[in-house]
Formats: sequence, structure tokens, C-alpha cells
Amino acid sequence: MTTTVPALSVSSAGAAFEKVEIERRDLRPDDVRIDIAFAGICHSDIHQARDEWGQGIFPMTPGHEIVGTVVEVGDQVTRHQVGDVVGVGCFVDSCLECEACKDGEEMFCERGVVQTYSSKGYDGEVTQGGYSGEVVVRDHFVVKVPDGVDLAATTPLLCAGITTYSPLKRYGAGPGTKVGVIGMGGLGHVAVKIASAMGAEVVVLSRTDAKKDDGLEFGADDYVATEDKAATKPHRATFDLILNTVGDGVDIDAFLGLLGRGGTMVNLGAPSDKLEASAFSLLTMRRAMAGSMVGGLAETQEMLDFCAEHDIAATVEVISADQVDEYYDKVVDGDVRYRAVIDASTLG
Amino acid sequence: MTTTVPALSVSSAGAAFEKVEIERRDLRPDDVRIDIAFAGICHSDIHQARDEWGQGIFPMTPGHEIVGTVVEVGDQVTRHQVGDVVGVGCFVDSCLECEACKDGEEMFCERGVVQTYSSKGYDGEVTQGGYSGEVVVRDHFVVKVPDGVDLAATTPLLCAGITTYSPLKRYGAGPGTKVGVIGMGGLGHVAVKIASAMGAEVVVLSRTDAKKDDGLEFGADDYVATEDKAATKPHRATFDLILNTVGDGVDIDAFLGLLGRGGTMVNLGAPSDKLEASAFSLLTMRRAMAGSMVGGLAETQEMLDFCAEHDIAATVEVISADQVDEYYDKVVDGDVRYRAVIDASTLG
Repeated sequence: MTTTVPALSVSSAGAAFEKVEIERRDLRPDDVRIDIAFAGICHSDIHQARDEWGQGIFPMTPGHEIVGTVVEVGDQVTRHQVGDVVGVGCFVDSCLECEACKDGEEMFCERGVVQTYSSKGYDGEVTQGGYSGEVVVRDHFVVKVPDGVDLAATTPLLCAGITTYSPLKRYGAGPGTKVGVIGMGGLGHVAVKIASAMGAEVVVLSRTDAKKDDGLEFGADDYVATEDKAATKPHRATFDLILNTVGDGVDIDAFLGLLGRGGTMVNLGAPSDKLEASAFSLLTMRRAMAGSMVGGLAETQEMLDFCAEHDIAATVEVISADQVDEYYDKVVDGDVRYRAVIDASTLG
Repeated sequence: MTTTVPALSVSSAGAAFEKVEIERRDLRPDDVRIDIAFAGICHSDIHQARDEWGQGIFPMTPGHEIVGTVVEVGDQVTRHQVGDVVGVGCFVDSCLECEACKDGEEMFCERGVVQTYSSKGYDGEVTQGGYSGEVVVRDHFVVKVPDGVDLAATTPLLCAGITTYSPLKRYGAGPGTKVGVIGMGGLGHVAVKIASAMGAEVVVLSRTDAKKDDGLEFGADDYVATEDKAATKPHRATFDLILNTVGDGVDIDAFLGLLGRGGTMVNLGAPSDKLEASAFSLLTMRRAMAGSMVGGLAETQEMLDFCAEHDIAATVEVISADQVDEYYDKVVDGDVRYRAVIDASTLG
């Protein structure tokens, strides 16, 4: 008992995308069916579709930044109704009973969170993501998109937004704090906008000055091209918080040296290389290096509301289904300004 | 205008200790002169005396765990009087005007803290430490030793005590939290006692079970010999805080995996190798890896008062001046139970 919907799929690691049809389950009492409007392309989609983390399940329809409209709800659904504009992020199920779930951190569910795609659901079925016409998701894992926002630009907030909002909030970004953002790609450019809206002093730490004008327009107070060592010097030991949105090839010690007393560098990327830090970088000024991974449902809703209130969203390129292969290469090359979003109406 | 006092000194990196006489300055208005009773041997003394950090100034009299009696005070000293039993720790001067000093974190003074030995004072004179008969120290950098405590056993608290107390307090060790201590040497055994007195569940994470009976006697609730991988398994993802008191050769990822959601591993040792962690160890469960370095004067006083109130101190071997070379080797071999303290009356 399923419904057939159009989707983009890769048949094996690194294959080109094909237009296919995939099945969506019939609604359970607590499910909602969403007619997808847009799906964002996250760098982690590429890692997964190319199986760079070695855990991909194929054929695979990626996509964990999803915005659309509710078209059907199960009998017990009370949170959403037909016609609501909603979003789905990186995961679609968890036990909702463990300590992590009760604390609103469903992504750390002790039973194991079910990822939006390339993951086994509790029913044993493999999940398929947002590069598709429709998706069926348990209501708890669906958030409301505030009225009046730009839907395409809001789509990336479901991953890039919550991934940056959560550590910014946890580590107290706001008036009187200085926040650095390493890398200004999909995650980084949203981090700049959110940190600035929170009232922090924001400095972009990008390799070159190619994105300087954009960085300042997004709300950064300063922009440092880190390939020029002298340019970072005035910022030594001054940051309260640095978000590292870049994966491999980051000189961790150099950035730790920019943190002031008690400062924290939060790693959001997933490099295959180990993070290497001198113990002295941490001891002196009692610095910390942390990790952070998306955020729970309540915090995701809070983030969407915050962004709507402050009139911020991602800066996007809306593309058609035919352009996804091409844009995967562009994402890897850092050539997207700043997040590609698939118009789901082009899938059919 | 100086006073000559007996001391132990190494003339060059790695040389044997010699009994010598060193000079102590005449009192400035805010100085106190302390007749030293005991001086502890910290592993960092060995790094310095053997110039393993490459910054040693020779000839060198080490010693930054000092307890003694005030025998003279300068005109403007109000905090201490002749006859007071006092302690001196890792540093003896700072600007007292910068943000760090004002916040009670003199060790991170922006002008640069003056270490108790092998450091240049603001007057340009090289400091000499506690393996000596007397020391002259600015009053702000002298703490009171509570009445009735064992002086020899209290001496190591001036470094090992504050170095462990400060992160235990900062990261909320107490009832309902689970604290791990990697390594049970000079720092580790004090960490176990303090964390236990704070009310935390304490688990020793030591390579072998050689120190198991002592660990449990010091207050640990459990003791895990980490060379047995199976023994650590039940503790996976359960710790709120882990203090790493060991320097080189620690498998950082293995211990990060023992931290629960939001947990922090604090590194207190100073390994020459880099700390290497997988980004995934930090991302999953949003863990952190931090550093910490001693503590400020107010917190050092608080720690001494806490230890006196809870009737805890280091477990020490009191040795004579003639035994210091021998005990340096024993410290490196992990053969001291658990901190060696020099009886300063044997220096003369």
C-alpha cells in the first residue's frame, strides 16, 4: 500500500542522477504527507551519494532540507493540517522516550535517530529524501514554516540554519561577544547572517577575499582573508566563539590561537582527517574545541521563527532537476552562491 | 640588598641538583617573606629542569607548590601577618589591571604572568622557586593555609589541587554527575579525592589495576583498567566530564567515546605530541575537548578551604633534599605514591 512519486536517485556510489519513481508509505495515524516545493543540496548529500563516508544505501534519493505543503494527515495528527507550509530536516524518526529525546535533542536518540535518507527506519524500510515530489513523515519531525517567508531561501535553514543556530545559541553569541566563522559556503554564510542577527560582532575567516563584499552584506563586521597571515594577527586571542564550517585542511592551532580566554571553537564539518591540536593551544586561555550536529525539533522551530522575525534566510540559486549533477561539482568546487535549491516541480 | 638562603639548583638542563645559596630580594612594601616548610615535586618541574619545553633559564631552583610561615611583611601588606601559615603556587606576579586579572584569572594576565621560577619578573630578575629555605612573594599571590591541616599533604594542593579543582568546578562536578579521571598520579589522585568530595560519581581510568585499592580508598566509585578494552565498554557514552591528567600516549578518541551527550574532556597534561581527535567523536553527542591551567588566587583559596573542610589533601612521601634526583626518576617512572614533598629543613 504505497504511493508512487517522482524522484532523483543515484543507483550506486558516484553514479549520475536519474529521474525515477519511488514509493512513499501510506499514512500511519501520526504521519503527514508533504507535497515538496524545494529541496536544498547540502555538501553532506554529496558525501553520501558518492559514499565517501562508506555507509550509503543504494539506490539513494538524497535531500534533508525540505519545504512543502501538507496535503494529507493521519487520524492522530494534531500539530499540522492540510494546507500548512512545513519543513523537514535531517531526521524523520526517533524513539521520543529516551533522555535525549525528552530533552529535545532527538538527533542523539539512544535508540538511534532515523536519518531522512539512506537510513533504516524502525520498520526496516530504507528512507529516501527530499529530491522527490512528496514525502511522508511522522508529525513530530515536521516543523512549521512561518508565514510570508521566501520558501526557496528558507529551505536550507532546515540543515544549514539549525546547524549554525544551535551552537551560536548554546555558546552565547549575542551583544558583547565576538564570533568568527571559518568558511563562507552553505553553512558559513547562514552562520554570518544568524550571528549578526543575534547581535554578535561577526568576523568572516575565509581563505581568500573573493567573498568579502557578500560577507559584509550578510552582516559581518569584518572579513579576514586567512591566506594573509598578517591579516589575522590583530584578531589573536580575541574571539569568544569560532564556528568551523570547513572540513579538511584547516590549521586548527592557528584558529585556536584566535580564541580569547575561555573561548570555544565548534566544528560543524565532517573531515575525514583527524583534528589535530596542540595541548598548549587549549591549556593557555583554557580554550575548548567542540562539535555540534544539527539540533532538535523544538530548536529547529525556534530557529525558523527567529530567522523569519529577523528577515533572514539563505542566499540561494534555484535549480532544476537536470542541473543536480552539475551543481554537485560546483558545490565541491565552492562555486555556488551560496546554496543550491532544487525546484521540485521540475522532477515530474 | 638581598638575603642569602639555601636552595637546590640545577646549573644546566638535566644536571644533578646541587645545594647552593641563592638571593632573595629585600621586601617591597607589598611583599611577604616566607620561611618554607615544604615544597612539592610536580612533573612539570622535571620538564623544566631537564628543559624539555625548551624555555628553561639556568641555574634553576624549581618548585611551585610551597607551604611555609610568614616571617616578615612589607609596610603595605594587610592580607598576611607574621606567623601566618601560607601557600604559594605556580605564579608570583601579574599586572592585576587587565580583564583576566580583574576576573580573578591572573594566570592568563594579558601583560604576562610571572611564573614562580624560571621566569622573568617585571623587574627583570629571574624567579627562583620553592626548593629553598625562604621565598619573597607579593602578598596578592600568597594564600592562607587553613588551620589544623597536615602541611606536607596540603603542599601539593597549590598546583595539583587547583589544577583539578578549577575544571571540576567549572564543568559542574557534583551530585548526579559522572566524572572520569585518566591517570592516577600526582594530579589524578587529588582529582579523585576532590571530585568525590564534591559529590560526583567518580571512575578512575588507569592503564592497569595496580592502583585500584588506592583509587577506591581515595573515594572513587569504580576503577577501570583501560588496557582491558572490554572493561571500558559499559562506560561508553556515560561520562559528563573526564579529566585527562596524562601527557603523551593517550588515545583521545577512545576516551571521547566514553563521554555522554554534551560531555567534556579536559586536558591538564602538557604532551609534546598533538592531541588527535576524529571530528565525528565531537559531532556525535556534541562533545568537547578543553584545556585548563591551574586557577586564580581567589579560586586557589576557595580550593584550600574546600579541601580543609572535607578533610582531604594529597597523599605524599616526604623526602629530604638529598633524594630529589632519585625522586625525579621515580616520578617519571610513575613510582611515587602519590606526590613527593621536600622537607625544606633538610636544605641547610
